[in-house]
Order: sequence, then C-alpha cells, then structure tokens
Amino acid sequence: MSIHVGVLGGGQLGRMLALAGYPLGIRLRHLGGPHDTPAAEVAELMVGEYADPAALARFAHGLSVITYEWENVPVAATRLLAEHAPVYPPPAALEVSQDRLNEKTFFQQLGIDTPAFAAVDSAADLHTAVAALGLPAVLKTRRLGYDGKGQVVLRAAGDAAAALEQLGGRDLILEAFVPFDRELSVIAVRSVSGETRCYPLIENQHAEGILRLSLAPAPRCTSELQKTAESYALRVLDRLQYVGVLAIELFERNGELLANEMAPRVHNSGHWTIEGAETSQFENHLRAILDLPLGATRPLGWSAMLNLIGGFPDTRAVLERDGAHLHLYGKTARPGRKLGHVTIRAESPVALNHLVGELRDKLRLSW
Amino acid sequence: MSIHVGVLGGGQLGRMLALAGYPLGIRLRHLGGPHDTPAAEVAELMVGEYADPAALARFAHGLSVITYEWENVPVAATRLLAEHAPVYPPPAALEVSQDRLNEKTFFQQLGIDTPAFAAVDSAADLHTAVAALGLPAVLKTRRLGYDGKGQVVLRAAGDAAAALEQLGGRDLILEAFVPFDRELSVIAVRSVSGETRCYPLIENQHAEGILRLSLAPAPRCTSELQKTAESYALRVLDRLQYVGVLAIELFERNGELLANEMAPRVHNSGHWTIEGAETSQFENHLRAILDLPLGATRPLGWSAMLNLIGGFPDTRAVLERDGAHLHLYGKTARPGRKLGHVTIRAESPVALNHLVGELRDKLRLSW
Repeated sequence: MSIHVGVLGGGQLGRMLALAGYPLGIRLRHLGGPHDTPAAEVAELMVGEYADPAALARFAHGLSVITYEWENVPVAATRLLAEHAPVYPPPAALEVSQDRLNEKTFFQQLGIDTPAFAAVDSAADLHTAVAALGLPAVLKTRRLGYDGKGQVVLRAAGDAAAALEQLGGRDLILEAFVPFDRELSVIAVRSVSGETRCYPLIENQHAEGILRLSLAPAPRCTSELQKTAESYALRVLDRLQYVGVLAIELFERNGELLANEMAPRVHNSGHWTIEGAETSQFENHLRAILDLPLGATRPLGWSAMLNLIGGFPDTRAVLERDGAHLHLYGKTARPGRKLGHVTIRAESPVALNHLVGELRDKLRLSW
Repeated sequence: MSIHVGVLGGGQLGRMLALAGYPLGIRLRHLGGPHDTPAAEVAELMVGEYADPAALARFAHGLSVITYEWENVPVAATRLLAEHAPVYPPPAALEVSQDRLNEKTFFQQLGIDTPAFAAVDSAADLHTAVAALGLPAVLKTRRLGYDGKGQVVLRAAGDAAAALEQLGGRDLILEAFVPFDRELSVIAVRSVSGETRCYPLIENQHAEGILRLSLAPAPRCTSELQKTAESYALRVLDRLQYVGVLAIELFERNGELLANEMAPRVHNSGHWTIEGAETSQFENHLRAILDLPLGATRPLGWSAMLNLIGGFPDTRAVLERDGAHLHLYGKTARPGRKLGHVTIRAESPVALNHLVGELRDKLRLSW
C-alpha cells in the first residue's frame, strides 16, 4: 500500500525526507552505517557498504525509486542500483558535482558565470594559475571538500608551497577569490515528467566554513536577481535531465551572480521551507522522483533558519519564542556537528531581523 | 537523549503525534493492537492489553509522561499507569468525557450552556423526559458512542419503544434536538505549568455522523463568539487542572453556543493546524504534557480540512491543487473508515471556498 523509496545515507537530510514522506504514504529505507541515528530513529535503516553489490541488491529490493542525501555517494553504486530501480537525481549529476573542476567547467558550458578558475596538478600549474588569476585565491581539492574543509587561501605567492603541501597528492583547483557582497543559494526542483519549480533566493551566512544562518526570501532581492538565479538552475536541470531537488550556491557581487557549487540533493539552506514555504524541499524532492505533481514553492512570510552546531540549545529558550520551530536530528553532540536547526517566521524582514537577533543572543550563538 | 512519551492507542492521532514529536527530540511509544499500523509505521508500537498490569508496566518503562489518543481508554489503566509516570490529560477528564450525562452535568456546573437533557434508565424515565424536553429529541447511550453510533432520533412519541429496544440495556440520555445554525468546535491547550492557548473557532460539517469538512478560522465568526468559546474551554481546563489539548464540540444557534461534547485529546477538527496554524495541535499537546512553553495558535490564512473516508483519493488530483496537503494514515480501505485528510490553505475565505468546491468535485466526495 505504501510506496517505498530508498535513500543512500542516513543523516538529517534523510531523516527530514522520511518525515516528509509519511503523510504522502511514502516510506523510506536508508542504506547507511550503524551510527546513522537521525534516519534510524524515524525510518528503516539497513546497515551496509556502498561497495558491496549484495548489500545494494538487498537494499534495492521492493523499492520504487532510489535517491541519496549526500553528493559523495560512489557513482559506481548508483549505476549498480539503477539496474534495480530508477536512481534520481541522475548519476551524471553526481559526476558533475563530485569534482569542482568538472562542476565549474559545466557551469561555464551552460553560460553560467563562475569565479575564474584553473586546474592544478603540479607546482608549475599552480605558478601559472596564480599568475593568471591573481591573489588572493583559494586552492581547493577537486573532490570531497565540504564545510570549508580541503581548501587553503593563498594571499601571497609565498603561500603556494605550503598550500600544495597541505592539500598535496590530490587533484586540485585554484579559484579566484571573489570579494562578494553576500552568499546566496537557489533551490529548484524538476520531476520525472519535466515539471520544474524554483524557491525564492536564500541569503546564507557562514562562519568557519559552516552555514550558520539562512534568510528566505533573501532580503533586498530584485526580480532581476531571482530571474538570473532561476535561469541558472533551469539550465542545469534541463541539461542533466535532472530529477529531484537541486541547490546551487552563488556569490552576489555588484548585482551579478557567480555560481560557486551545486548540490544534487536537498540542501541545508532549504530547511526553512518546512515551515516557510507552501511545500517543503523534502516533500517536493519526493514528489519529483515519484513523478507526482510538484507543490507550490511560494514563501509564507519571511523565514530565518539558524543551524544548531556542536551543542544543544536550551529547548525552552527556543520554544518560548513566538514563531520559532525547533528541529533536532537525533544526534549526540560533538564540536562542529550539525545537531539541529531552528526556523523562525515573521511577517516582515524587519520583524524577522529583530527575532533573529534576540534568539541569537538568547542561545549565545557565537558567530 | 530523546524524551520518550507513551501513547495509549496507535491510530492516526497517535501517528500525527509521533511525527510532531521527532523534530522536538521526542520519541513516542504506543500501546495498541496488532493492527494499529498508523502508529506502527512511524514509531514504536507495543502490542498489549490495557487490562494487563504487566503489559502496562512494560509499556511505562522509561517513559517521561503518558498520554492517550482516544477517550474510551479504561480509566483504571490510566490510574495504574499514573504510578509509573504522569498521565495527561488527567484521568478525571476521561471520567467526565466517557459519560454523556456526567459531561453535560459538568458543563452546566461550569455555567456552560448545553442542549436540555435528562437521564433515561427506564421506559418511564423516557416518557417523562420526552414530556419535559419535547420532540424531536435524541436518545443516546451515555457511554461509547462515536461518529453518530449509539444514538436514535425520536420524532414522535411512538418512536420511543423502538428506540429503547435498539439502545436497550445500556444507560441512556435524552437530549433535546437543537435546530442549530451550524456545528463549531474549539480547541484549547493547557500545559503542566498552567499556560493556556486557544485556536480560532472551527466550523465542522458532518454527514452520516462522520466529520467531513472543517473550516478554520470558522467563517463569519464574531469576536463575541470566539470569546464565549474560549471562556467555555478555559473553564473546563481550569476546573480539571487539565494538561494537554482539549476539544469541545459546539452548536451555534442564533449567535449562542451550546456545548455538545468534549474530547480530552487532539481532535479531527484540529488537523488543519498542521499547515494552517503557527503550531499544530499535535506539537502543542506534546509541549503541554512535557511542560514546555506552548506555541502560537494563530492561523496562517484560511484553511479547510477534508476527511478521506472509505476509499483512497486520486493522489495526483490532490497534489496538483495549489496549496493542498495530503495526509494518509497508513491504513487499508474499509467503508466508513478515516483513511486520511487533505488540508487546503488560501488567503481568503472566498478563495478557499472555491478551492474546496473544486477539490470536492475532483475527488467525487459525495457528501
């Protein structure tokens, strides 16, 4: 009677997908590790290795469709799984997004502006790249970077050797440092049938490489900016014949948008949609991969999402705020770990700003 | 790390309580029967009998607080459980609401208007009651009635014998038939600390004794009417030192409100609060029984909740409606069974009315 959907990964994104699925009659089965409590608390968790074809076959048994909650899933596993059930987003989206060089090259092929960049395979490459791009610049691993890990800022030519040493032995990319005005993201969704929807632009504030605060709709956003972001997202969706939710992180500089990276999955900067949009990114992802009609993406007032990182907040201090919604992920505390988030909704950006300031103080969020 | 809450019952109300709990770090354990799939799909279900003290003790192990999702839970079971953990709402609320005569007497003691009524223990009582109340009138069992079951309308004096026959052997109550303008309900919540909140009045439309449609906030509602309803609810909450969500069903007649019955639990007419209020009745019930600050009860636009009864709707026909939200309960279809509901939200009562009409036609809802 229920529809069964498989998810590679059992973290908070998988948890929120599972919670969004139940009302629609959709049950999730997660493939993950024994410590994936966020998903295990709310749905079926199968413990197994992505490299084990027998485990993949067991996992896939009876599933209508398979998706994933992080972009570093081995492409080979998704190709094996695709023999059992459709895998969405398409593995091609993983291939693009798992490699910063492929990703930026892909953006450029679609006419999507990006920071200047160059591949770096050697000290000589780095020398050439620094000369071409200028300094400061950011040297990054092409693969497996997240939350600011796997990257070093070069401020002077003399930094190059140490940076290479630190990141050495891996394929690298040098990216021009963009003195951006702010960071934004756009979240869009495309269904199997090709229906697409886009959420309003989101403003994101990071500290120590980790997302701390998202504001949606992003304040002071022109319709031009929204149009540009949607056009970027639609080009990616279309080219990849993409299915599911896609997030693109952007830099805004002088009213222009540069694409920084994309995530072929539901995204931390979209958590506000649970209360702040007519349909959440989680529900729309499930609708998309099951080829159901997509839900409206319009915002309900103005929302802020604050990540809870490293330690638990005083629950009362959150819940006593009018309009605050707490989301815990079923994890144990550890420095730097995303343990939950709070969404606050208000009727105006000014009222929202006031509420965020109060909550930040109350929770002693240090960023 | 999580807080564990026990729930007697494993139906859709328990399911929606469980789904509301996870984001707050609350996990539910249900005590129910082997067919309680709505709760079993989303949370822990312990199969056991309310009359089995050992089962109750196993169930209660490690629970912070215990609640229930239906009002015909045996009071004796709640008294036993109260030795292990607090049981909310208080068993006294069960005692009042399990017996229509106690309930209406209780309302009258609090100065809450009700339809005229009289206890009926014999044919002679019924004769006297009919003479006092006039006809038409409704003869009801005092206990275990729901969804229009256990009641017979008397239109002429000659109906009395057949009605007594049909309901015979049980304690009865005769209630004056109220030619009401409409049915309303009020949902309120009180926490352990005594904080109270009230949702806006809800208009309810029934067919064949089963709730079909709720509109919230109830259209054409004066602030007088809201004030009266809140005052009724607050009197009950206060007198019972009540903890949790309480619903009171009301008749509106010529701008006056008569209390028909109360339910000491989350209520079908409050399902719209999941999308249509800042905080849902399910979350507020959990907050209340755990003595957490209560969430705002203000409505977000105008909502309609349509029950899905007996058969499943065309999922696409629901999801393609802008602003429609589907909630399935994980049950198999059976005539007269509540299988799910749809909430639609709009920016005005007129827009909402239009959407409801469309959806009703599309889903071929026959009422």
